[in-house]
Amino acid sequence: TSTATRSQPGRLNLSGIYPPIATPFTAKEDVDYCRLAENLQKYAKMPFRGLVVQGSNGEYPYLTEEERVEVVRVVRRSLQPEKLLMAGSGCESTAATVQLTEKMAAAGADAALVVTPCFYKGKMKSGALIQHYTKVADNSPLPVVLYSVPANTGVDLPLEAVVQLSQHPNIIGLKDSGGDITRIGLIVHKTKEQDFQVLAGSAGFLMAAYCVGAVGGVCALANVLGPELCELERLCLSGSWEEARVLQQRLIEPNAAVTRDLGVPGLKQAMEWFGFHGGTTRSPLQPLTEAEIRQLRQDFSSNGWL
Amino acid sequence: TSTATRSQPGRLNLSGIYPPIATPFTAKEDVDYCRLAENLQKYAKMPFRGLVVQGSNGEYPYLTEEERVEVVRVVRRSLQPEKLLMAGSGCESTAATVQLTEKMAAAGADAALVVTPCFYKGKMKSGALIQHYTKVADNSPLPVVLYSVPANTGVDLPLEAVVQLSQHPNIIGLKDSGGDITRIGLIVHKTKEQDFQVLAGSAGFLMAAYCVGAVGGVCALANVLGPELCELERLCLSGSWEEARVLQQRLIEPNAAVTRDLGVPGLKQAMEWFGFHGGTTRSPLQPLTEAEIRQLRQDFSSNGWL
Amino acid sequence: TSTATRSQPGRLNLSGIYPPIATPFTAKEDVDYCRLAENLQKYAKMPFRGLVVQGSNGEYPYLTEEERVEVVRVVRRSLQPEKLLMAGSGCESTAATVQLTEKMAAAGADAALVVTPCFYKGKMKSGALIQHYTKVADNSPLPVVLYSVPANTGVDLPLEAVVQLSQHPNIIGLKDSGGDITRIGLIVHKTKEQDFQVLAGSAGFLMAAYCVGAVGGVCALANVLGPELCELERLCLSGSWEEARVLQQRLIEPNAAVTRDLGVPGLKQAMEWFGFHGGTTRSPLQPLTEAEIRQLRQDFSSNGWL
Amino acid sequence: TSTATRSQPGRLNLSGIYPPIATPFTAKEDVDYCRLAENLQKYAKMPFRGLVVQGSNGEYPYLTEEERVEVVRVVRRSLQPEKLLMAGSGCESTAATVQLTEKMAAAGADAALVVTPCFYKGKMKSGALIQHYTKVADNSPLPVVLYSVPANTGVDLPLEAVVQLSQHPNIIGLKDSGGDITRIGLIVHKTKEQDFQVLAGSAGFLMAAYCVGAVGGVCALANVLGPELCELERLCLSGSWEEARVLQQRLIEPNAAVTRDLGVPGLKQAMEWFGFHGGTTRSPLQPLTEAEIRQLRQDFSSNGWL
Repeated sequence: TSTATRSQPGRLNLSGIYPPIATPFTAKEDVDYCRLAENLQKYAKMPFRGLVVQGSNGEYPYLTEEERVEVVRVVRRSLQPEKLLMAGSGCESTAATVQLTEKMAAAGADAALVVTPCFYKGKMKSGALIQHYTKVADNSPLPVVLYSVPANTGVDLPLEAVVQLSQHPNIIGLKDSGGDITRIGLIVHKTKEQDFQVLAGSAGFLMAAYCVGAVGGVCALANVLGPELCELERLCLSGSWEEARVLQQRLIEPNAAVTRDLGVPGLKQAMEWFGFHGGTTRSPLQPLTEAEIRQLRQDFSSNGWL
Repeated sequence: TSTATRSQPGRLNLSGIYPPIATPFTAKEDVDYCRLAENLQKYAKMPFRGLVVQGSNGEYPYLTEEERVEVVRVVRRSLQPEKLLMAGSGCESTAATVQLTEKMAAAGADAALVVTPCFYKGKMKSGALIQHYTKVADNSPLPVVLYSVPANTGVDLPLEAVVQLSQHPNIIGLKDSGGDITRIGLIVHKTKEQDFQVLAGSAGFLMAAYCVGAVGGVCALANVLGPELCELERLCLSGSWEEARVLQQRLIEPNAAVTRDLGVPGLKQAMEWFGFHGGTTRSPLQPLTEAEIRQLRQDFSSNGWL
Repeated sequence: TSTATRSQPGRLNLSGIYPPIATPFTAKEDVDYCRLAENLQKYAKMPFRGLVVQGSNGEYPYLTEEERVEVVRVVRRSLQPEKLLMAGSGCESTAATVQLTEKMAAAGADAALVVTPCFYKGKMKSGALIQHYTKVADNSPLPVVLYSVPANTGVDLPLEAVVQLSQHPNIIGLKDSGGDITRIGLIVHKTKEQDFQVLAGSAGFLMAAYCVGAVGGVCALANVLGPELCELERLCLSGSWEEARVLQQRLIEPNAAVTRDLGVPGLKQAMEWFGFHGGTTRSPLQPLTEAEIRQLRQDFSSNGWL
Repeated sequence: TSTATRSQPGRLNLSGIYPPIATPFTAKEDVDYCRLAENLQKYAKMPFRGLVVQGSNGEYPYLTEEERVEVVRVVRRSLQPEKLLMAGSGCESTAATVQLTEKMAAAGADAALVVTPCFYKGKMKSGALIQHYTKVADNSPLPVVLYSVPANTGVDLPLEAVVQLSQHPNIIGLKDSGGDITRIGLIVHKTKEQDFQVLAGSAGFLMAAYCVGAVGGVCALANVLGPELCELERLCLSGSWEEARVLQQRLIEPNAAVTRDLGVPGLKQAMEWFGFHGGTTRSPLQPLTEAEIRQLRQDFSSNGWL
């Protein structure tokens, strides 16, 4: 594993900005490792804390387990050792999650990002989720980061579950993509004895999340406007809130476009405009329509990015 | 494949009642094929149209692909040839769904039950779902049954997508677990030229679904009260609506208990009371609490079933 | 009050079809009592059980209290004595509801239709609603009909509250506009000792509601296709389910158009096409756009009504 | 009207903290003007920008129109002239809202806080709401503040409606109680040419709202912890974000308790503990249970407020 710095003995320091990288595909829909490598070279020049591999934007539900692991292995090989590699290893069952987490560790990940199981969402109450994450963390060779993304899963990891899980020595943080800033503030408050690290899961509320105590962000938009998001981080950390606000506000619409509005196809299209390889998505995700491409461009250009 | 009867040349007749069978596990959480076989022997004596294997109640998201296929193979071997085997083959990606459908065909399934992809739910609009199902049906050696179960997926297959897909020669029906009887009636109405077959996805609205034109039901409760559900079918088909109503009403609470309220753990517990092997679920599904067991029992006993 | 027939001593028989009448306005947005009278003359020739005045389709939230009462008084004067007049008297506060119910009784209503309070929806749990309806029913000179219309209120009167309230001697029924047929069946089942009468709140699920035990319907569409809905009632009551189904299916799209899709403006437009006075709505409801009018017409004509 | 300061010619400066005051009742459920006066004396000593009268916490849906106006008149008489009185004047119909706004002006209000109409929520799209607010603002003698409170109304005033309405010369701001900080940031961004003033509608996200550009807050919790919220304002405005964060975090649970969790009955109970007259609510709001009182106390005491 990498030489990533740690905030306290045994605790990985997650602070910073991460792109949850997209997975490029060839015309035959295979993973395009060449294009991935070219993207990685560009990201290597940006002051990211690290990369998230197999987050929602990596189309992980459309990859086989082998592909999921292989992409992590390939990224690890090219990633600077001081950069952190956080690998998505969540599956529906606890046992499968434990196994995939072990494989991600073997492939060189520094931390496991574990999404909430969600199919039986009526049963995914606090008790079940606490059991699930406890078993995963007990067995994981990697520190575990909880991952709540209700827009995709329909499950919002309950606050009381987060608070209880924050006491597990191998659960070190949360990526919260829900965007409820009151909840994020309360999570920071109620876990402050645990050195628990909260990451904003989207660029739209990154500044507000810093404001209430988050330590960084995993932001789809960092695939496109990485330096700008790192600059926003710098402004927040240095207390330059006025400048931060101006920058944050210009990022909201582009961010909404590549997440809520147009999803991964939108993100991949925008990547093309900014010099990265985005390309196609796997089916059933569909290419953007002409009207959607115009809207996407408008969301960037009206905020001065194109 | 079986000699299942067909309602028109090339079109499988789906009419009837199906239990979406549960998957028994050993103490080590392996699939317990012995207990499964014993359940199948009991189901063989009931006038079901067939069995659904790898529906939501089969915990398919917690099985490996190999397990999903192997369970189908095992069920096929013991199932009477005139009984229909409908196998769940839905995956998140179109390609994976195509592949698993082929494997299900090779394993002996008569039809493929294909759940809506759901992770990128904001993008699972009509267009994407039509493309997905069209590709699956184009490539499937088996007739395809659409499967909409919004309580689990957060996606309700849009009516206009159902109507368009009903025109595909290899898409023969829909299992609708949403329970919106107005929608079900309208789907029957708008697909009446296509000999499209709608199955109620839950016992709670089975009679009403027959009333508006459904041809059968895939009902978790049929794992427990199979003969009673077949009797309800008979009453509906013979126009004995008064008797049907009395029976239907007694089934609503037990059905809610083993689906919406207590899920698969509730279903498996109730199976034990009625002489079947239910047993444990895979994690993160949790065993029932004592209070839940009491509630479950009450829902059956207050309606005269225990 | 009228000589409306009663199903048991002291219990008004609600069985049948009711249009929740629209309120016509003059060009100055005053209530147009002339046009109202002309509509009433036409409705008088149809085999309705009665009329609902100040239901959601009467734009009651846009009428003053005086207007709400005056419309009831005017309708009563023209209504045949054997026809039942059900008047909406629900307000946000319990005290205001009690007072308005008394005024509706004085104005000649036979029953009070009391919508759930809804502004503090987070607090409108079973306990609060049971208290509310109990106080209203205790003080009401009229039998009370509960009214649950979650699409407008965001509150679905909980089943356990309905069951408990069904035991109140002055609460005789429920208009359920939610359309959950499983819930309707269960309500019928759990209140069967109370001679509690359930009315479908929309034409889209009228046949299914009869099927599971409802006794009638309060249907916006009855303002437009009144005889057809009475015919559907007759078919259901006479057990002509096949014919009923054909008719029911042709009503779903027109019904959706004048309720969920286009609301009161759609209903009022359709009334014009069928020889009634519909006219404008009060603001903030807006007139239909040209495209909406085309869609509305299509929903009627494609089902053979225009 | 008052001598409230203005941020630009013709534009009232809304910046600051407001309690949306509760309405005390006598044992007979009449408005208790004596106790109201005593509360007002205490609020007069706090550095509020002003008071909101007939916000959601004032139980306005349970007051008659006369009571709504009279409370405003009484508050105006006791309020220091430099303090701003914002009066809730929203009704379901446009005409009623126009009339009540005029009465509020005559009663001495400085601004009208106009909640979204919500009963026909399916029709309360941008177009209808823009028309509604435009007519109200055209006719209002008072500057209008938009009010979006989806937890009560089920309607979230669409962003594009807010942006368009911000250009109306008599619409000067928005109270946003939804708590979506991304949306709030974007509203600030897209209305920055209009000197449009956004107020946080709840204390839970007050600091984050300041961070992204809000100018103040209308906070239920200010009825209880008024000086503390004014201190939070001061810390945010002076850039003392670290101290602000500590204070903000201690306010989240008490705020949730008196809003989302326990509503107006919780707010009124907490007021009693802090030396104000809270007392009972009107029915159907119910008194707290013993367990709820304990929870409420816990939410204050665990954060060091009791």
